Amino acid sequence: MQSTMMASPLLVPHMTERAAKLFPSVEVVSVLPNGTRHRSTLGDLHRRSRQLAGALQAAGIIKGDRVATLLWNEREHLEAYFGIPVSGGVLHALNMRLHTQDLAHVVAHAKDRFLIVADVLLPIYEQLREFVQFERVFVVDRAGEKLPEGAESYEAFLASADNTFTPPELSEYDPAAICYTSGTTGKPKGVVYSHRSICLHALCTSLPDQLSFSRFETVCPISSMFHVNAWGFPFAGVMAGSKIVLPGRNLQPEALLDLMDQEQVTLSAAVPTVWMGMLNALETQPGRWKLSPRLRIAMGGAACAESLVRRFDALGIHVIHAWGMTETGPVATVSSLKPEMTTWSNDDRYAQRARQGMALPFIDLRAVNDEGECPWDGETTGELEIRGPWVAAGYHGIEDSPQWTADGWLRTGDVVTIDPEGYIKITDRVKDLIKSGGEWISSVDLENTLIGHHAVREAAVIAVPHPKWQERPLAVIILRDGACVDAGELRSFLELNFARWQVPDAFVFVEELPHTSTGKLLKTKLRHDFRDWQWEPA
Amino acid sequence: MQSTMMASPLLVPHMTERAAKLFPSVEVVSVLPNGTRHRSTLGDLHRRSRQLAGALQAAGIIKGDRVATLLWNEREHLEAYFGIPVSGGVLHALNMRLHTQDLAHVVAHAKDRFLIVADVLLPIYEQLREFVQFERVFVVDRAGEKLPEGAESYEAFLASADNTFTPPELSEYDPAAICYTSGTTGKPKGVVYSHRSICLHALCTSLPDQLSFSRFETVCPISSMFHVNAWGFPFAGVMAGSKIVLPGRNLQPEALLDLMDQEQVTLSAAVPTVWMGMLNALETQPGRWKLSPRLRIAMGGAACAESLVRRFDALGIHVIHAWGMTETGPVATVSSLKPEMTTWSNDDRYAQRARQGMALPFIDLRAVNDEGECPWDGETTGELEIRGPWVAAGYHGIEDSPQWTADGWLRTGDVVTIDPEGYIKITDRVKDLIKSGGEWISSVDLENTLIGHHAVREAAVIAVPHPKWQERPLAVIILRDGACVDAGELRSFLELNFARWQVPDAFVFVEELPHTSTGKLLKTKLRHDFRDWQWEPA
Repeated sequence: MQSTMMASPLLVPHMTERAAKLFPSVEVVSVLPNGTRHRSTLGDLHRRSRQLAGALQAAGIIKGDRVATLLWNEREHLEAYFGIPVSGGVLHALNMRLHTQDLAHVVAHAKDRFLIVADVLLPIYEQLREFVQFERVFVVDRAGEKLPEGAESYEAFLASADNTFTPPELSEYDPAAICYTSGTTGKPKGVVYSHRSICLHALCTSLPDQLSFSRFETVCPISSMFHVNAWGFPFAGVMAGSKIVLPGRNLQPEALLDLMDQEQVTLSAAVPTVWMGMLNALETQPGRWKLSPRLRIAMGGAACAESLVRRFDALGIHVIHAWGMTETGPVATVSSLKPEMTTWSNDDRYAQRARQGMALPFIDLRAVNDEGECPWDGETTGELEIRGPWVAAGYHGIEDSPQWTADGWLRTGDVVTIDPEGYIKITDRVKDLIKSGGEWISSVDLENTLIGHHAVREAAVIAVPHPKWQERPLAVIILRDGACVDAGELRSFLELNFARWQVPDAFVFVEELPHTSTGKLLKTKLRHDFRDWQWEPA
Repeated sequence: MQSTMMASPLLVPHMTERAAKLFPSVEVVSVLPNGTRHRSTLGDLHRRSRQLAGALQAAGIIKGDRVATLLWNEREHLEAYFGIPVSGGVLHALNMRLHTQDLAHVVAHAKDRFLIVADVLLPIYEQLREFVQFERVFVVDRAGEKLPEGAESYEAFLASADNTFTPPELSEYDPAAICYTSGTTGKPKGVVYSHRSICLHALCTSLPDQLSFSRFETVCPISSMFHVNAWGFPFAGVMAGSKIVLPGRNLQPEALLDLMDQEQVTLSAAVPTVWMGMLNALETQPGRWKLSPRLRIAMGGAACAESLVRRFDALGIHVIHAWGMTETGPVATVSSLKPEMTTWSNDDRYAQRARQGMALPFIDLRAVNDEGECPWDGETTGELEIRGPWVAAGYHGIEDSPQWTADGWLRTGDVVTIDPEGYIKITDRVKDLIKSGGEWISSVDLENTLIGHHAVREAAVIAVPHPKWQERPLAVIILRDGACVDAGELRSFLELNFARWQVPDAFVFVEELPHTSTGKLLKTKLRHDFRDWQWEPA
């Protein structure tokens, strides 16, 4: 017996087609480099993304060809998100924060044919072109200055489309976007999302118990559109018919809060460090911003300290912690409570919300250690492994990778516990665990606790070789402006929650911590910097 | 370039696996034939449905084999919904309201191998077995009475599973369920849902702007599980981890209201006639039931009179009108407002909510008449055509059907307008339109208006041949208990909203109207009964 259902594929082009039919006048607000706001609509988005697809087709794009972007979270980037896949091309949003060499590597590795670049980002392109060449370069030339040699105007390119666009035959398994990991070790590796994986990710993140995308939301992805597609917010938001707000290049807390206030944003997404900056502004300038009472903020890309959830709650802003990685589309788990948990104590509820949460529908996960699959007891730690329709099965152009198990699960590199309720909690990265005297110490737990101290702005805990214990934890601390604290006080503070042997032996106060291009702590650098640390004799 | 993502299929088995891992203690409440309630959990559901799959495997089921059910909305039916697809089999829920001959036809046509039947429904089986034979028959024998010759106990069958169930290799395109249409003309025709179509239907109906399934809901499908799978509520509810309430065989308004009150149901589904019965009980016995303040009721299977939406609103109960058919999974459109409509006048909002609504994501629709595709102007009428991943592309075992267009869209047989906002409004069935003097008259509009009259309980308007006008409308009316009204008053009432030539020329008052097995007006029968109607000379 065969199913009698239609073989209608899940395709990215459907998203703007739907929005243009049902929500044509819903706004797309895009902050320009000069700080003013450009206002257009989802109808415009559909029309212009089809124009882009038509222009790419006229330029000779062949299904699967890569088109790179070097753009902020802005209107033209949104057009590229849809126009490139509509043309049959593959969107490659370049992470402008990578070093030129790494950027050149990913462009060459992806074999990007075309580039769309904002005029304000031309300096990056100028560096890049010393190493790689694009067939054609289209500049979003708002300032109207002279274009680099050989480059063309994006608007002129769009205008050149003669409205004879013929949609290519697409399968849902065709590639639609490529994202490179920003791993802390080794070269960036490419993950190629399919139309199917993007559509299913959009559907499942949109569910009421997950991030809940709706036409009643105003969605503002602060998380970069060049970093795992801004967690899929542009796709899910447009599919739902949400108002879209794109913050452009100014990610200063006050500018973001002005925007979120004036556009009454209800759903946003960013990494914890960005939220921390906004939180400080909100706390030090109470009453200055009137944010939407419905505002929900998704926090991901790094562990979310419980204290952060509490402080936002005190301001009436609901934090949703989510977890994922480039290899998982990216959102794989979301931490929201179960009905019976709403009666738990405050402390228990906050502890639960600060976990990384439960798997989305159609995502399977397990924790594995030397003894095999870990029980869901909230205590046994193992490496998180994952599979599902928007999880990578391999890297682009790499034959075999130890990242996948023999039975086809992705090894995430995160060490987790899974509690009986099914919530994962990341206790460390596999390579960030500290092995002291045969016992494991979690650097992430220490960091999250340290951040809860009123004087601490940011904290990193790393393993440093030790003559007796093999490794011992060392804490590197940035204090808040004007705050003052010494190692003794931090040690006592930690001893409230940790065994004495788990507490760092040294506290180093610094002005700055090294981060990856996507805002994650660059522990490899820290470990390198402190590799010759001399422990005081006990 | 190839996508690097996993080819993880969308499979029905994932739904209970997920529920058992994340929501094992969430309740499944099932009303027994004696009126008491059986309480179990989603964990039990997973365990027992796997047992059923194991027992079916031991019984020799081969992927694609059909297993029929003759059950109410009850626990064992829910087990069959999952256990049969998990085994690789195809669920065939038999519509017990069909005539024995039709039932025998669908069983023979589907080639059902096994049957699961409730003991209270054995009389139907006894009639059926005169025409068709099942290989094995499993009786849910709650009363403990002697089983029919050759039949076995369902519980004993389950217990026979020796826990060595080996999940079959399943593709998402494999069949999971077959539903037969209950069309008003011709033999029932089979639509075979795939794992994929069921999963995508569950995901898209679950979205916040659609029916919004969540683990915070208590879901009660009143719509029969033998009628297009209770609109997919069992699948979406279990996937979300909702509490499930199954009303069993007693569908009397007061029994349903007792159940919805005591279990605090928040999301339910039924055809308008069932809701009308409950509405009358609520209005005549104010304060008797304390329903959940969050209660939302989905209404489908027939047009939803605006007056019904208003009367439920007055009781604090939110109506969501949805549209679909066996061939569309079934839910294809849902009528909920857009943000800007919340400021519309009351009248405009109710008119909008009584339309059939907007297409779900990944569903395409269009209205087509002799001039081609109709503009979305809210006025031009045409036949609704539809396509999407949970829309049928054909009927089981039928080579070619005029139901599909040459370019692969399903012809729904519904005549609609589509307004500029994208909301469809069914004005008639293609075959129920009345052609009077060259002009079309919509019987559905007349019926919906008549139902808004305080004295009218149910109304049908049909075309009757007319010597001068070709056809003229005739209204057949059931009055409410104790109500009294004459044709003149109804005529005046209609003339408030219709042109005089559109108003029926005759009003006939009856005690009962003929319905299909699924509660739809059987207009073919009415047209037959009134085919020799003698119009009074003008």
